[in-house]
Amino acid sequence: MGFRFQISHKAIAAALMLCGTFTAAIAQTTEERLQRGDAVVRSLNNGSPQPTLERMRQEFPFLASATQSYALGDVWSRPGLDNRTRQLAAVAAFAAMGEAAFMKIHAGYALNIGVSEGELKEIIYMVTVLAGFPRAITASQALSELFAERRAAPGKQP
Amino acid sequence: MGFRFQISHKAIAAALMLCGTFTAAIAQTTEERLQRGDAVVRSLNNGSPQPTLERMRQEFPFLASATQSYALGDVWSRPGLDNRTRQLAAVAAFAAMGEAAFMKIHAGYALNIGVSEGELKEIIYMVTVLAGFPRAITASQALSELFAERRAAPGKQP
Amino acid sequence: MGFRFQISHKAIAAALMLCGTFTAAIAQTTEERLQRGDAVVRSLNNGSPQPTLERMRQEFPFLASATQSYALGDVWSRPGLDNRTRQLAAVAAFAAMGEAAFMKIHAGYALNIGVSEGELKEIIYMVTVLAGFPRAITASQALSELFAERRAAPGKQP
Amino acid sequence: MGFRFQISHKAIAAALMLCGTFTAAIAQTTEERLQRGDAVVRSLNNGSPQPTLERMRQEFPFLASATQSYALGDVWSRPGLDNRTRQLAAVAAFAAMGEAAFMKIHAGYALNIGVSEGELKEIIYMVTVLAGFPRAITASQALSELFAERRAAPGKQP
Amino acid sequence: MGFRFQISHKAIAAALMLCGTFTAAIAQTTEERLQRGDAVVRSLNNGSPQPTLERMRQEFPFLASATQSYALGDVWSRPGLDNRTRQLAAVAAFAAMGEAAFMKIHAGYALNIGVSEGELKEIIYMVTVLAGFPRAITASQALSELFAERRAAPGKQP
Amino acid sequence: MGFRFQISHKAIAAALMLCGTFTAAIAQTTEERLQRGDAVVRSLNNGSPQPTLERMRQEFPFLASATQSYALGDVWSRPGLDNRTRQLAAVAAFAAMGEAAFMKIHAGYALNIGVSEGELKEIIYMVTVLAGFPRAITASQALSELFAERRAAPGKQP
Repeated sequence: MGFRFQISHKAIAAALMLCGTFTAAIAQTTEERLQRGDAVVRSLNNGSPQPTLERMRQEFPFLASATQSYALGDVWSRPGLDNRTRQLAAVAAFAAMGEAAFMKIHAGYALNIGVSEGELKEIIYMVTVLAGFPRAITASQALSELFAERRAAPGKQP
Repeated sequence: MGFRFQISHKAIAAALMLCGTFTAAIAQTTEERLQRGDAVVRSLNNGSPQPTLERMRQEFPFLASATQSYALGDVWSRPGLDNRTRQLAAVAAFAAMGEAAFMKIHAGYALNIGVSEGELKEIIYMVTVLAGFPRAITASQALSELFAERRAAPGKQP
Repeated sequence: MGFRFQISHKAIAAALMLCGTFTAAIAQTTEERLQRGDAVVRSLNNGSPQPTLERMRQEFPFLASATQSYALGDVWSRPGLDNRTRQLAAVAAFAAMGEAAFMKIHAGYALNIGVSEGELKEIIYMVTVLAGFPRAITASQALSELFAERRAAPGKQP
Repeated sequence: MGFRFQISHKAIAAALMLCGTFTAAIAQTTEERLQRGDAVVRSLNNGSPQPTLERMRQEFPFLASATQSYALGDVWSRPGLDNRTRQLAAVAAFAAMGEAAFMKIHAGYALNIGVSEGELKEIIYMVTVLAGFPRAITASQALSELFAERRAAPGKQP
Repeated sequence: MGFRFQISHKAIAAALMLCGTFTAAIAQTTEERLQRGDAVVRSLNNGSPQPTLERMRQEFPFLASATQSYALGDVWSRPGLDNRTRQLAAVAAFAAMGEAAFMKIHAGYALNIGVSEGELKEIIYMVTVLAGFPRAITASQALSELFAERRAAPGKQP
Repeated sequence: MGFRFQISHKAIAAALMLCGTFTAAIAQTTEERLQRGDAVVRSLNNGSPQPTLERMRQEFPFLASATQSYALGDVWSRPGLDNRTRQLAAVAAFAAMGEAAFMKIHAGYALNIGVSEGELKEIIYMVTVLAGFPRAITASQALSELFAERRAAPGKQP
């Protein structure tokens, strides 16, 4: 079973940015952390911004800023875990927690960076053991939606 | 940052067994599935049985059998996901679910098969985003216990 | 940042009722507890009944009665915690538990009794720490819906 | 309060199958376990297949097979617990876990095998104590939907 | 596999009390509800009070009163569900929720009223499907403790 | 009957203060955020450091830093919610989530800043409605421990 994905110019630029100089952690400004978070989103999302994050900015500015600077900029960019493993671990955790919508977003990121549909299914199969059959079945339904959406509009992802 | 692990004769035998002939899935007997599950445990556990599983056998025989034949034999042995990713995904899910004892068991398996302490810490850091700081802190405490136990008795693991 | 709210005749009557005579707890009848629960709903809901509670009455009469007599009449009316703190604590707990629909109902009650939109947002920001970013983001989406509904039909709330 | 349900020819055939010869557990093949799981579904579902299970088959074949062979074939068919108690216990657990969709499926099975609407409501009332009022109220809403669907199309169930 | 349990004079008196006159629900006083809750405890607990409930009385009087009058007096005494099914459903829910301590209390009640160890084990086996293997294994460990405690001091239960 | 309210002098002064001296959020360094987090701990903890946080520093340096700079420095220090409400909301959420150890830490902070034991008990009583009786009872047991520890060593808190 094969799959296709596009690496846009923006994604490449973002990847280069992530490998750039890393100032001493405690001297970093929030502005730098925000920029790093933005680079993370674009590298996971084929160069595009993330709709859920964008929708928060006006009414919940601190939540948007914290998601971008802490969750993405500080945590998701850390080099000690490769992107593929990070995404699959997030998919497993979200599926086990019953957070199907967020699992679907991160499964999309996983496909964007080269993880296969088969590997995502293996995570779902494992969730039957970790958290029971209902959570795994709900997650499989969300993944089926994601696969169908991506087949319907290839290249337009995320 | 380095690590050590022993590959015993039993572990090697188990690994060979896993790569052996795979009869058509629907013709497999439960006995074959139990054997495959036993091989999975030994390959993750430096050739030794797993105490939690063994303690169940007398009073909860079906639970021990289902853990060995389904959870380990059918799911954990599936080839579509490499062992390292599988273990790290399980650690992430257990930590996010607040299941610290089971996270500790699977983190030990991860160390046995070559995952580094640093990679396990990265999973914990990610859990602050997935499930909040209390779940991540509780998981870090369980990991600290595990690292200390392994330092105290190297080679005697699991 | 400003806000407006209406205190209706019914809400004032309910407030007076809550401050009325409190018979010895163990001599209270269920009828009295039901009346107190009804007064609590009206004081939180601008004098109106609560749709979720009303919909239960026909098919699940004990559940409606228990919600009104125990949850509202016995617990929610207790004087040892001011209403504003009680509502904000309920919003925090529901958001952390992933119960967005019930969080939305109680956030509406909070706005009815004078809590500001800003204070509700602060609770959401705190949930990123307590239960992780997905729960906080889901809660922020429910709050955004609530704010929009109230802007669309001011004075007609809840 | 009464109710009606149809026992179809298929359901009777499935019930007979379940009482048939039980080969030694460890010599059973997966094919036999799959057949037993199919018999369980038909005996709970008035002789019909289960839509959720069927929808999984194409894209998540292992999940469909594991649900049918392990969850239904190995666990749900075990004779040590009568069907009525098994279904009511599942309804209680799903409602307490917040898994309303799966609770609705198993509540439907319960009605199919003769459990009354009143007994299902008693489980919901108990959930207020086990897991709080929001989980119980959400479950009551799902049960109300189920009762209405069955009144609208009697005999066509599940 | 057999079991023994004692029905004490107190338990019989409590059972008779439960079958006594039932005043119209809304005219009941809290005192009557407390008495009914006390009768429920004694009928489930071989005539003895429940330690967890007693320990709460001094520092958390409302919680003890609500547990006795609402949880036990209003809910647990309802006649629409037989005691055996009620206890097994509670055990299933607590095990699935990861509430092993409370599962252990209610499993003890189940044994006191004639449920077999085998039926309790069947509930645990079912939890592997509902909530995954870790929750089921943790619950099996709590049940093993309970069985051992009761073997060590037969007749002295709860 | 409606009413209007004035934007008081105090509200205007507060608004100006929020926009006043406060280095632009995006220019803050992580070092400044760490210092603010340390100030938050000491203000909640009678001037002392927090043991759980200190124990993390050596083995999980990023987790300790993130707890101090993000959870405490960015979130817990925000002025839009008073400290008393913030602590009581955290206690409610932790109790409802079953996180008794973290509930105990934040209940201790609440007592340190002047919240009464009675107010903490009111939160526990409310948890019976939000998340059920087991979670509330477990939380009451943790609070009883906390009260006893503080009585045994007054002034030596936290």
